[in-house]
Amino acid sequence: MPTVSEKGMLMPASPIRKLVPFAEEAKRKGRKVYHLNIGQPDIKTPVQALLAIRNFDLPVVEYSHSAGFASYRQKLSDYYRGLNLEVNSEQILITTGGSEALLFGLMSCLNPGDEVIIPEPFYANYAAFAIAAGAQIVPVTAHIEDGFALPSPEAFAEKIGPKTKAIVICNPGNPTGTVYSEAALKALRDLVLEHDLFLFADEVYREFVYDGQPFTSTLALEGLEQHLILVDSVSKRYSMCGARIGALITRNAEVYQAALKFAQARLSPPTFGQVASEAALDAPASYFTEVVQEYVHRRNLTHRLLTSIPGVKAPLPGGAFYMVAELPVADAEAFCAWMLTDFEWNNQTVMVAPAAGFYRSQGAGKNQVRIAYVLNETDLEQAMECLARGIAAYNRLKA
Amino acid sequence: MPTVSEKGMLMPASPIRKLVPFAEEAKRKGRKVYHLNIGQPDIKTPVQALLAIRNFDLPVVEYSHSAGFASYRQKLSDYYRGLNLEVNSEQILITTGGSEALLFGLMSCLNPGDEVIIPEPFYANYAAFAIAAGAQIVPVTAHIEDGFALPSPEAFAEKIGPKTKAIVICNPGNPTGTVYSEAALKALRDLVLEHDLFLFADEVYREFVYDGQPFTSTLALEGLEQHLILVDSVSKRYSMCGARIGALITRNAEVYQAALKFAQARLSPPTFGQVASEAALDAPASYFTEVVQEYVHRRNLTHRLLTSIPGVKAPLPGGAFYMVAELPVADAEAFCAWMLTDFEWNNQTVMVAPAAGFYRSQGAGKNQVRIAYVLNETDLEQAMECLARGIAAYNRLKA
Repeated sequence: MPTVSEKGMLMPASPIRKLVPFAEEAKRKGRKVYHLNIGQPDIKTPVQALLAIRNFDLPVVEYSHSAGFASYRQKLSDYYRGLNLEVNSEQILITTGGSEALLFGLMSCLNPGDEVIIPEPFYANYAAFAIAAGAQIVPVTAHIEDGFALPSPEAFAEKIGPKTKAIVICNPGNPTGTVYSEAALKALRDLVLEHDLFLFADEVYREFVYDGQPFTSTLALEGLEQHLILVDSVSKRYSMCGARIGALITRNAEVYQAALKFAQARLSPPTFGQVASEAALDAPASYFTEVVQEYVHRRNLTHRLLTSIPGVKAPLPGGAFYMVAELPVADAEAFCAWMLTDFEWNNQTVMVAPAAGFYRSQGAGKNQVRIAYVLNETDLEQAMECLARGIAAYNRLKA
Repeated sequence: MPTVSEKGMLMPASPIRKLVPFAEEAKRKGRKVYHLNIGQPDIKTPVQALLAIRNFDLPVVEYSHSAGFASYRQKLSDYYRGLNLEVNSEQILITTGGSEALLFGLMSCLNPGDEVIIPEPFYANYAAFAIAAGAQIVPVTAHIEDGFALPSPEAFAEKIGPKTKAIVICNPGNPTGTVYSEAALKALRDLVLEHDLFLFADEVYREFVYDGQPFTSTLALEGLEQHLILVDSVSKRYSMCGARIGALITRNAEVYQAALKFAQARLSPPTFGQVASEAALDAPASYFTEVVQEYVHRRNLTHRLLTSIPGVKAPLPGGAFYMVAELPVADAEAFCAWMLTDFEWNNQTVMVAPAAGFYRSQGAGKNQVRIAYVLNETDLEQAMECLARGIAAYNRLKA
């Protein structure tokens, strides 16, 4: 029997994969499980997008252009202009989710063996795409003590070697919810230029920035024109994860042409998803105002309840809909599993993601979890109550 | 400025890419261009699929399971059972088009440097996916003289070396339309087992087999359980290329698990496309009967007109909706370009795909073209008339 490839073996399983059977088992026992483990929001998709799908009236579901419908690219270019980011439609490649944008970008820029530096904790699937491209990940650790701020240029510089080809950042961050400051981003820009690296910036949570903070897009930083590959997606922005529509944006024509060849090989991004995504751009500004308001309420509630649990430490995140918390347990993964297998309160429990899966450094984040505050406030209250009681019970048991 | 990757440079452009600007130019001049260069059928998508999309009534467009909706996998499993092919839903991984199925399959089975043998001419994007996986393609040439029959086991065996890991076939074939015989497939099966290789079988044109010939799926061949990775897609079957829904099917649990990890990294296949594809399975048998009848008419017409052009040689294909023809020109690519830039008849011209792009061997197929008979009979007649007159005019010019 022929054997699977090294990549096939190396590919990381999702950080919560091991817990899924436990959650299923809990549900079979009739327990309600609050899912704070995954970034699948319950926020409604804009009606504009859904109406466009319901009005789809072409007799043949044809391929689109490999770079995506021209009309959609044009409208997306207008969206960026509305944010004071100058991007023309020839610099936009519509992809099958942000995932494909990152994959095509890495494949277009990195050779096997090249290194890519990523601040950890980072979105676990970055590792998967790096492996697919044959690249090596070099983590630079961000710390819970300073709210997972972007590591300093010195911290990055320490990791740069002859094989370093790129840096990947996520802003606002998944799993941390951290929003990077303009000053920190400019310092990173200078480093990128000094070492002539590519900078991949995942900004899919751009619209989810709270407390009136400014958001600085890497697209606004001068000097990065030939270095920046932006990853975008409608998944979170319009709560349409299943549409599988993202975008790779770059002003580097060579990178664009290389990525386009990968795009041509897979023929076209999904037609229905593009129809919905193009229409979603017609959602009124009030759509985001309301969604942001809702997330701020949820974040504040979650953070207040969470940090009132004895021994729990969690910086207040400025964006996205995640927070990373340190729990008073030695091994968060074992605790998360126990919450599903052994714990219940009023026949309810909660599932959160062990944060170790978001770190690359051995042993890092072992007592941390990622909490996605993607449920309504009533559910979040119940979930936090479960967590508080679970931690107490677990520690009594272990004492 | 940092440079793009080797893969980014190596990725082949599509065989018709160079001709696209010429076609656009011809249209700008007001000429009608008959597109026989691409497999985008004009056949209507089943109404069942379109109705399901128009009735989509969920408020949030959520991710599906990474392997695809369980309900869809189950129904797809029933579809295969209906063809006497025993496949359970745990052996089906729903992918973003057949493209992603092949990419995940190659990534899961091949290490960089491994070789994969493919009968040429072959679907040009196989090369792209092989490059993405870091694999080397070794072509084994099929010949127009015997209707592009599957090369003999001896011809394959000659190409097998220590780095050979897999063979890829497409049946019915793109670009040839050839349907492989059961005997030839069994001989290939024996070779695959003898050398312990993976066999990738792209059977996306399964429903398009003509003249009452039997179609043998590799899924029906005993002994291949641990070796076979089947690539499937709804793109052509239900004329919904834009849905971007395919499937990787394998009974090899290790390969399935590896492919699933690649699938988990990109989260989920498109939700809308799955809704449409699941509903498409409700299309009545008459849908295919009518489509097949239509293609047989088109094939017969195209083949009759084509082979009546002096100097043109083309085997009558038994399946799919392509045929490869040898033209009485030295360089088919130059001729195809000329047809767009310099030729018109009644202000019309035709675009076909130079076949050299489907060959890997240097210089092979230089006087051949692929014709996709995806237009209605009136258009096909006009297109063939353009081709006949174009060849005559071109050869007068070159004489």
